[in-house]
Amino acid sequence: MPGSGSSPCAACKLLRRRCAKDCVFAPHFPPQEPQKFAYVHKIFGASNINKMLQELPFHQRGDAVSSIVYEAKARLRDPVYGCVGAISSLQQQVAQLQSQLAVAQAQNLCMRMHQAAMASTIVANTEVSPLDSAESSDENQQYKHVTSGFEPFGIAEALLS
Amino acid sequence: MPGSGSSPCAACKLLRRRCAKDCVFAPHFPPQEPQKFAYVHKIFGASNINKMLQELPFHQRGDAVSSIVYEAKARLRDPVYGCVGAISSLQQQVAQLQSQLAVAQAQNLCMRMHQAAMASTIVANTEVSPLDSAESSDENQQYKHVTSGFEPFGIAEALLS
Repeated sequence: MPGSGSSPCAACKLLRRRCAKDCVFAPHFPPQEPQKFAYVHKIFGASNINKMLQELPFHQRGDAVSSIVYEAKARLRDPVYGCVGAISSLQQQVAQLQSQLAVAQAQNLCMRMHQAAMASTIVANTEVSPLDSAESSDENQQYKHVTSGFEPFGIAEALLS
Repeated sequence: MPGSGSSPCAACKLLRRRCAKDCVFAPHFPPQEPQKFAYVHKIFGASNINKMLQELPFHQRGDAVSSIVYEAKARLRDPVYGCVGAISSLQQQVAQLQSQLAVAQAQNLCMRMHQAAMASTIVANTEVSPLDSAESSDENQQYKHVTSGFEPFGIAEALLS
């Protein structure tokens, strides 16, 4: 039980000290997970972790421990860049996605403009003289069907909703 | 001059010790930037930084110091999440961009399909009987111009190049 004295927390066990009732490590470093404290001890040192936790209200310490463990593991895995390597890689991914999105949006714009031109050409070519209107009414109906049926953003809207 | 003994590096000055010729901190913590070492000392501790640098070949220590300083500053700015907060925020940005890209690509696909349908309708309506061909040659020429001029990816390709 953490902080009971009989079964010291992972931190006190590693530091070979008595685990007091008010041990700052005990709620976050249970004896069942000895490696968790070993990571942060190796990178930040017990004294610094102690100070960091003491400076935070209790309800924020759990999140702080999680992020400190994450950082320590990243630094052990990559001693040169640590978790800054992940930041750099994510920043590259963001830049790549932004560029792909710009291309896709430019394609969209270009297609919209072309489609508008196509639609106006169809309309222009179906504007017949009154004398021809009786003959070409079937054709006009067909063009009307094509232009009024144009709803290219149906799928996109469905994805967004 | 770092490591000269007469003008100690920022680390040795803060630690109030003699800056030896082979001081591991001196090449990376010049006396002109005292705050840089203060940050990493507060978060990681001088002993841990010393160990981390000693374990790396000299040519990688500059990058390691940069990433350690970045992490320390992030932890001082945000004591709960440190630079893990930046990772989380970037991951959210990646997810948002991936979703926006999926929508834009779905719009593209939808417009391509619609454009293909429009083009085939135009072609079908310009397929005239041999008896009418002489009269409608001008019209066909116009449709040909509309369909052959369709290069929606010109802008996108220009952006990519």
